[in-house]
Amino acid sequence: MAATEESLRRNLAETLSAVESQGNSVKALKASNAPKTEIDAAIEALNRLKLEKSSIERELQSIVSGNGADSSVTREAFRQAVANTLERRLFYIPSFKIYRGVAGLYDYGPPGCAVKSNVLSFWRQHFVLEEKMLEVDCSCVTPEVVLKASGHVDKFTDLMVKDEKTGTCYRADHLLKDFCKDKLEKDLSISTEKAAELKKVLATLDDFSAEELGAKIKEYGIIAPDTKNPLSDPYPFNLMFQTSIGPSGLIPGYVRPETAQGIFVNFKYLYYYNRNKLPFAAAQIGQAFKNEISPRQGLLRVREFTLAEIEHFVDPEDKSHPKFFEVANLEILMFPREDQMSGQSARNIPLGEAVSKGIVNNQTLGYFIGRVYLFLTRLGIDKKRLRFWQHLANEIAHYAVDCWDAEIESSYGDKSGVALVAQEKFSEPREVEELVILPMKKELGLGFRGNQKNVVEALEAMNEKEAMDMKAELESKGEVEFYVCTLRKNVCIKKNMLSISKEKKKVHHRVFTPSVIEPSFGIGRIIYCLYEHSFYTRLGKAGDELLNVFRFPPLVAPFKCMVFPLVQNQKFEKVAEDISESLTVAGISHQIDIAGTSIGKRYAISDELGVPFAITVDTISSVTIQERDSKDQIRVKVHKVASVMTALTYGHRTWEDILEKKMGGYLVKLLSSLLRICR
Amino acid sequence: MAATEESLRRNLAETLSAVESQGNSVKALKASNAPKTEIDAAIEALNRLKLEKSSIERELQSIVSGNGADSSVTREAFRQAVANTLERRLFYIPSFKIYRGVAGLYDYGPPGCAVKSNVLSFWRQHFVLEEKMLEVDCSCVTPEVVLKASGHVDKFTDLMVKDEKTGTCYRADHLLKDFCKDKLEKDLSISTEKAAELKKVLATLDDFSAEELGAKIKEYGIIAPDTKNPLSDPYPFNLMFQTSIGPSGLIPGYVRPETAQGIFVNFKYLYYYNRNKLPFAAAQIGQAFKNEISPRQGLLRVREFTLAEIEHFVDPEDKSHPKFFEVANLEILMFPREDQMSGQSARNIPLGEAVSKGIVNNQTLGYFIGRVYLFLTRLGIDKKRLRFWQHLANEIAHYAVDCWDAEIESSYGDKSGVALVAQEKFSEPREVEELVILPMKKELGLGFRGNQKNVVEALEAMNEKEAMDMKAELESKGEVEFYVCTLRKNVCIKKNMLSISKEKKKVHHRVFTPSVIEPSFGIGRIIYCLYEHSFYTRLGKAGDELLNVFRFPPLVAPFKCMVFPLVQNQKFEKVAEDISESLTVAGISHQIDIAGTSIGKRYAISDELGVPFAITVDTISSVTIQERDSKDQIRVKVHKVASVMTALTYGHRTWEDILEKKMGGYLVKLLSSLLRICR
Repeated sequence: MAATEESLRRNLAETLSAVESQGNSVKALKASNAPKTEIDAAIEALNRLKLEKSSIERELQSIVSGNGADSSVTREAFRQAVANTLERRLFYIPSFKIYRGVAGLYDYGPPGCAVKSNVLSFWRQHFVLEEKMLEVDCSCVTPEVVLKASGHVDKFTDLMVKDEKTGTCYRADHLLKDFCKDKLEKDLSISTEKAAELKKVLATLDDFSAEELGAKIKEYGIIAPDTKNPLSDPYPFNLMFQTSIGPSGLIPGYVRPETAQGIFVNFKYLYYYNRNKLPFAAAQIGQAFKNEISPRQGLLRVREFTLAEIEHFVDPEDKSHPKFFEVANLEILMFPREDQMSGQSARNIPLGEAVSKGIVNNQTLGYFIGRVYLFLTRLGIDKKRLRFWQHLANEIAHYAVDCWDAEIESSYGDKSGVALVAQEKFSEPREVEELVILPMKKELGLGFRGNQKNVVEALEAMNEKEAMDMKAELESKGEVEFYVCTLRKNVCIKKNMLSISKEKKKVHHRVFTPSVIEPSFGIGRIIYCLYEHSFYTRLGKAGDELLNVFRFPPLVAPFKCMVFPLVQNQKFEKVAEDISESLTVAGISHQIDIAGTSIGKRYAISDELGVPFAITVDTISSVTIQERDSKDQIRVKVHKVASVMTALTYGHRTWEDILEKKMGGYLVKLLSSLLRICR
Repeated sequence: MAATEESLRRNLAETLSAVESQGNSVKALKASNAPKTEIDAAIEALNRLKLEKSSIERELQSIVSGNGADSSVTREAFRQAVANTLERRLFYIPSFKIYRGVAGLYDYGPPGCAVKSNVLSFWRQHFVLEEKMLEVDCSCVTPEVVLKASGHVDKFTDLMVKDEKTGTCYRADHLLKDFCKDKLEKDLSISTEKAAELKKVLATLDDFSAEELGAKIKEYGIIAPDTKNPLSDPYPFNLMFQTSIGPSGLIPGYVRPETAQGIFVNFKYLYYYNRNKLPFAAAQIGQAFKNEISPRQGLLRVREFTLAEIEHFVDPEDKSHPKFFEVANLEILMFPREDQMSGQSARNIPLGEAVSKGIVNNQTLGYFIGRVYLFLTRLGIDKKRLRFWQHLANEIAHYAVDCWDAEIESSYGDKSGVALVAQEKFSEPREVEELVILPMKKELGLGFRGNQKNVVEALEAMNEKEAMDMKAELESKGEVEFYVCTLRKNVCIKKNMLSISKEKKKVHHRVFTPSVIEPSFGIGRIIYCLYEHSFYTRLGKAGDELLNVFRFPPLVAPFKCMVFPLVQNQKFEKVAEDISESLTVAGISHQIDIAGTSIGKRYAISDELGVPFAITVDTISSVTIQERDSKDQIRVKVHKVASVMTALTYGHRTWEDILEKKMGGYLVKLLSSLLRICR
């Protein structure tokens, strides 16, 4: 007996507000240093409420998204069609495929590489150039001390279980999730209580501790899927690729798991470069690495990926943005926490209203939401399948004041392509241990008189090991022989002549700590979603074949046009080659195809590559240009092809402009108005 | 008693031809399977000749480059001036500097990052787009099996010695080199024989084996420079950063030491993508990693760097190039092996002549030499400090038919920025070990009848470990229990029922092996040389200050122009901001500076950043544009600034064009000719 959507929504709203108020009680108890038992009880109550909330959400979800099984089959078929086209056209290739590949590693083939390069160029134009950001390019290889300070060494982990006989590793939460889903979908005999329990597990397992996961795996008798062997208890596995820097093996390091650290460690130099003024933004595009336990979900969960990250540092007292008015009128599909709490759906909200009503914390964050929206939709992300989802107040990290994810819908479910975090304070200045050698001038003066300066210099020049050895010896023996090279002799250093210590030092000193807005783009995920949003099929001319098309805008398309002679013919081929050369000079990427394949086959390849325009040489003086999606055609003189393509590629003219006036007509018009002026 | 330059040259020429002829004798002996003692004797004679050759070269070098000590002081001072400017303006920052840095790792700050991005964009335009190359983007993380096949696991090493007490590591050849240089420069008492010996060591140590290096280190009593402790014997240290892929720790891997492997492992897919036709080129830009033992030479020898590599595959029967005529008339400073042998210096040779005379092996290689030359000189590399140096016939690898290095002179001495190797054959198809499970149908049929199919499927599905375990058990016991899951029971497998083996398999099968031309660009090194070639100093206005300038062409410059109001004034600032906005729309990277610093200071910063044009707002209707190197100025109307800058940036107009006619004048002229036509 399924609940109605309405009653579920009402129910969810009530539960959400209970979660919120219980969350506040917990905070209040902690703040007032209440007894631990009292706090624990309150947390337990909060967790019960969260479970309830998630269960209702899931139930509601299943009603809203209709017949789950059917739609998952359709999704799977759609995903397979996209993947087949992508692989056939070499958008990507599993890395080291001739060696049977390595899970989670993919190479971009020529069209994929071109799409990526176009996306990154546009990102640079849209963010770095437009906002005058300070772009940096930092090392991937990172010493452990940096990632210790950032918390990655201790906390960048997933919980793992091992097949006790073969040693094969699995992500513990994946096994539990698969078990619950399987049971729910395939075992119709289970009781309603059991079903509810499994659903609760599914809704909450992201927050399970190692112990909770282990207990559930035992309780359900989950075994290794490949061998049916028993499994170990779950334990954390660090997801960074570890290595060692230099030949001694003494400097542990990693290839970076994110690019942001490169910006943070250079903060003080960038701040100085910006003449010690706020606000300013730093940006970085680069590779990051994550040693996933068992990668799934194709291009969405990989072991190596390109990130584009921005850290926009602002004065905490002034988060206004001078260009906010430029995005204030954008209507964006948003899902604010208030709406989640009151059981509404995501809705279009003008950004200006979102900021003025306090839904979005401040103008600068609002400005970035608008810019991210423009970036994604201009690439070709479907704005109806893009929503900005706000984290609940009690779910965001302690340092954040507001947090929105740009969620792009794909066949795998919602995937966050861009995370926007507004931090109240830029992470604390880091502490490092520094060697401090403090000579005692008075004692040294008494001991060495005229030679004091030489002795002090030699003492201060000691490296860490020498100094710590001396400290140990002074502590045990009270004095030590010490060679002063500028005096060319040993002197006797006494314990009271200097102090040697290691001190924690703040690395950068600032009068105040800037706030920071952090938009972080997973480029590979965005590109994958773009592939799905751009893909469609249509019937071939004969009506007996389904053809695949990517509707990439010219900005993103791997090639802007294809050039081919209608028939194999030396004159036409020469014209095609001349056109190709003029396109190259104009910087328009294209392919020329003078092979003898049928024109239909060539169009099919062009469509599968997402090429927006096909130029067919069918006379020696003019050509036919066909637009991919509408199949509309225009005739253009050979010597004007490059300028028409330039206008279409760089967005000075749309296809509609060209269709209406044609470029030629446009020029004629311009000239005739000039002539009219002359008369 | 120094020999004259002339006599040395004559001497060198004779020795080189002796080396060549002795090299040929060795080859002939090997080819005829002569007795080992005879071959060894001939090799020894060859080595003696090589030593002699190197010693003469070095002597000649020291005469040619004049007073060594003085010029090295100048070079050092120049290098320091460049480095100071680069660091002050944040072209680069030692990585993790706030944690005291890691040797050999550098971050690019904003201007350095912009220069790099410009260089890579131009590389894409000049090579990938212009030549329609297939660009790919492959994983950095690479499983060991791939780098085993490429030889990196065994041979990508440097020889290392350890401080026997502290464990500090040193590159063995560096210590020996430093010792010899130091002795020669500082110990004037050594005999001429000793000096000659040290020089011989310096000239030949690149070819020393571990034993030879160890013997010299012992003989000279070389000890650890920091501690004076004794040193270990030299031993090879692998220069790859090692890691482990996946959670099991069972898949050893590395971050790649070069990008070319990514192209080779994808060869068959790319060949198919190109419709199985030759020639075609694949290209890749990406990070590569080398765990240097003790990095020196600043930005020239680093542990992480960007490579841009091309593999141009050609038919070994046809190495002509249809566009060779476009570069045939370029006169390029070349140093062919014949000239090296006959004691000449490098000289300008037209490329057409170099190919027609057989100096350069084939048209395609010649074409790439021309394109590399154009690429480097358009970036701003000084063509007088760029030469193409041919490897001697007996020095190039066995698989190469010709090999040229583009050597760019820097203060560190000649550095190869681009290596061009022409391989006769693309490296052999790789062999991999593959598990082969071969069920014996007859025996299985007899044993299992109707269940045969299930048993065969289960046997074939075994993974490597299971299969090898079964093989071992069958060999020891003759039979084994085996669970067939589709039958839900154990069956008894006998030794004669299947064969299990590991077989070497060729990974790709081709009818013929293409030749390949491999231009490989070390982007960071090229950029560093570009910095040196672009740097100069000039006197400030007052004549009491030396100002630093980078003379980057607009193509490379991190910002194309600076915009500043002459004085702090709201109207001027508004104009500056309007201009900035129009530049942004036009895609022209620039900086705007409305701070109250003096105009002189702003010009100084602009020059140190290598910005080619400074736009000073000194009225509300027009501005002054000043060119960096000539300091020539023109006046331009505010609304025309963006179009003038676009023309200058994208090379439609040079500064000279603008100076002559001015953009405004140009348009007026155009219009007036139109008007004349109208009349």
